[in-house]
Amino acid sequence: MGLFKIIRKALTEEKQVSTKTSAADLVTETDHFVENLIISVLKEKFPSHRFIAEESTAAGSKCVLTDSPTWIIDPVDGTCNFVHRFPTVAVSIGFAVNKELEFGVIYHCTEERLYTGRRGQGAFCNDKRLQVSKETDISKALILTEIGPKRDPATLKLFLGNIERLLKAQAHGVRVIGSSTLALCHLASGAADAYYQFGLHCWDLAAATVIIREAGGTVIDTSGGPLDLMSCRVIAAGTREMAMFIAQEIQTIHYRRDDEN
Amino acid sequence: MGLFKIIRKALTEEKQVSTKTSAADLVTETDHFVENLIISVLKEKFPSHRFIAEESTAAGSKCVLTDSPTWIIDPVDGTCNFVHRFPTVAVSIGFAVNKELEFGVIYHCTEERLYTGRRGQGAFCNDKRLQVSKETDISKALILTEIGPKRDPATLKLFLGNIERLLKAQAHGVRVIGSSTLALCHLASGAADAYYQFGLHCWDLAAATVIIREAGGTVIDTSGGPLDLMSCRVIAAGTREMAMFIAQEIQTIHYRRDDEN
Repeated sequence: MGLFKIIRKALTEEKQVSTKTSAADLVTETDHFVENLIISVLKEKFPSHRFIAEESTAAGSKCVLTDSPTWIIDPVDGTCNFVHRFPTVAVSIGFAVNKELEFGVIYHCTEERLYTGRRGQGAFCNDKRLQVSKETDISKALILTEIGPKRDPATLKLFLGNIERLLKAQAHGVRVIGSSTLALCHLASGAADAYYQFGLHCWDLAAATVIIREAGGTVIDTSGGPLDLMSCRVIAAGTREMAMFIAQEIQTIHYRRDDEN
Repeated sequence: MGLFKIIRKALTEEKQVSTKTSAADLVTETDHFVENLIISVLKEKFPSHRFIAEESTAAGSKCVLTDSPTWIIDPVDGTCNFVHRFPTVAVSIGFAVNKELEFGVIYHCTEERLYTGRRGQGAFCNDKRLQVSKETDISKALILTEIGPKRDPATLKLFLGNIERLLKAQAHGVRVIGSSTLALCHLASGAADAYYQFGLHCWDLAAATVIIREAGGTVIDTSGGPLDLMSCRVIAAGTREMAMFIAQEIQTIHYRRDDEN
């Protein structure tokens, strides 16, 4: 896909950086450019479809999932990494019909890895079939999480407290790589046993959710209940036992829903 | 180098895992195998040289840097990642004479990136010259750190407290990737602005220190003074200002020196 080559190229060029909600929430010209490009290509082929995308939402578009066929797009996941040229950056495109996620495509730009998943048909990285970890024991688990955009003292306390709880429960380690989407891809490939986050968005999750489920994994709400794509929070794990352990262990960090006005 | 192919191959095979000092401090057959292989190849060529290497030290060899030509080797940096097949694993080989680091070679196994640096002759990733970031402002910085092997409650509090301080100082983000050596390579390539850690070892640092210095960066002790390779602690940054800011900001976590009995 030519789009992916554009992102790769953009990674080597100087970037205009502006901030969105906080200094940590960066947006570059490339995010806008790639999002517009993806949407215009898809709109031409599927003029009746709907779109939910990161930069359009930031610019004021409503972020509501209806029964209509809907593309859910993150043009550059890991924008802070992208700004720093830290090589953990992805494009994520999910597709839902009747609010059901049908397929997902995630491209890890710098490593040229294409993750794909389609409901009922498995998940792949390039041509290799993905299979999640079968680990159920936290004391043998590698856990992934991300900081999220809010950096007020109370949020930081909760974020760091959750890591503390999991390390005290003897998790092998906690990793923070700066891209929710790629962390979820590691989970799908069995390279980690669980992922949780507060403050991510439906466009970080949509494609990855299909890929993880098709790799045999569980994607749920941080309460332990079913995933709500618009709730800005998630636990994903190789096994349901691991997901439920994390749900019981972590404290909630409150974020606004994606579909809140 | 054929060695690197062996590591790559080992990554796709089942591994026997045992623990060293704690559940988080894992060692695999591959670590032993690769270390023995590297040392036997080098010993044949340089019979008078000395060796400091992770698994030999764990097995009781003394870890003392003398004026003799000395190879400082980490056969598998990121062993916890390696056990989980999390694709952030490296081999690190440094070389010192008269206690001065002369060159370093680091191989990022899964991505096939070879980082090299030689005193006075620059640093490279594959054939690309490396150049550190010139950032001096923490509020524009991406910071890397690692958890370290100690997981007692007091250590965890200090570890998480240091992250909290840097995020409160408005750092763009903190990343924890599970390999000190590769984090230091990201620093050398300008993809991050600073790295600090307590509880790493001379074999994590030796090769990377040459590479970072040859890429224009600073490698110092966490006190702000000169690096002590055996002190199990480090700050590396693109600029001296950034390194000194981190030194003032973080609290010390005490670890035994590498050369302590």
